[in-house]
Amino acid sequence: MKSMEDLFHAVLQDVYFAEKQLLKALQKMAKKASNEKLANAFLKHRDQTEGQIERLDKAFDMIGKKPKGKKCEAILGVIAEGEEVIEEAEDDEVLDAGLIAAAQAAEHYEIARYGTLCAWAQQLGKPQLARLLHQTLEEEKQTDELLTKIAETSVNQAAMSA
Amino acid sequence: MKSMEDLFHAVLQDVYFAEKQLLKALQKMAKKASNEKLANAFLKHRDQTEGQIERLDKAFDMIGKKPKGKKCEAILGVIAEGEEVIEEAEDDEVLDAGLIAAAQAAEHYEIARYGTLCAWAQQLGKPQLARLLHQTLEEEKQTDELLTKIAETSVNQAAMSA
Repeated sequence: MKSMEDLFHAVLQDVYFAEKQLLKALQKMAKKASNEKLANAFLKHRDQTEGQIERLDKAFDMIGKKPKGKKCEAILGVIAEGEEVIEEAEDDEVLDAGLIAAAQAAEHYEIARYGTLCAWAQQLGKPQLARLLHQTLEEEKQTDELLTKIAETSVNQAAMSA
Repeated sequence: MKSMEDLFHAVLQDVYFAEKQLLKALQKMAKKASNEKLANAFLKHRDQTEGQIERLDKAFDMIGKKPKGKKCEAILGVIAEGEEVIEEAEDDEVLDAGLIAAAQAAEHYEIARYGTLCAWAQQLGKPQLARLLHQTLEEEKQTDELLTKIAETSVNQAAMSA
């Protein structure tokens, strides 16, 4: 990696891989969640993730590269931790609380990555590309907030009385 | 895991492992960074991390458990990505930009984890424990903001002209 363009391309490939993994993980988490609001939030974000992948396709196009993922160990680790919760939780409410925690770790990973990509796109003189990625950044932040709200208003209360 | 106490304990062990790994990683990143402000920020956060580990020791004590880490694949993934940047970057400024990106991914992982732990501690009726962990949460957020500032004001500009 000799230039910021190379670095940008590498992180874009990392996020592309991460989003595709999350698409599958969110589907599974929606199935496992017992709280209906939570299951719906996971499904809604799965749909949103499809749109985010389309944005990444455009982003690759805007830098003249083919869309391609690059193995991202961080997101695989986050997903593995979520799967551990699914395997080990012996109570529905504890499972839901653990799923939210795993999903928020994934959201924060994406917030960090899209934050970085937006800043770099801007500095590379590509404001259109920065705006495109910023839309996804805002969606990830909103999802994180929604999960906090669901945790506070329903899941954790139920889990405490389990 | 049958209860929220079990889940809290599991995530506490996860973060304990993560902080100990980051202690070593920050030392290495400080050595590799070429920008002085950035190297200092990494060293400052390494020192802060020592204090955060002491807080975790106290947190284990407050829930009547021995401090012990549990392998956290997510943070190992984030650190592995940072090491990849160190190996692959062929330009000092590009390396610095990549190090900041990796460090911000680590910070966001911790922000997610401490946010979760604070909320759970509060709901478990342990406000003192929540306050203790909240101190670390604030430090992680401040570190993330400091890294953004360093990126915007010095590192990225230098990298763009590389």
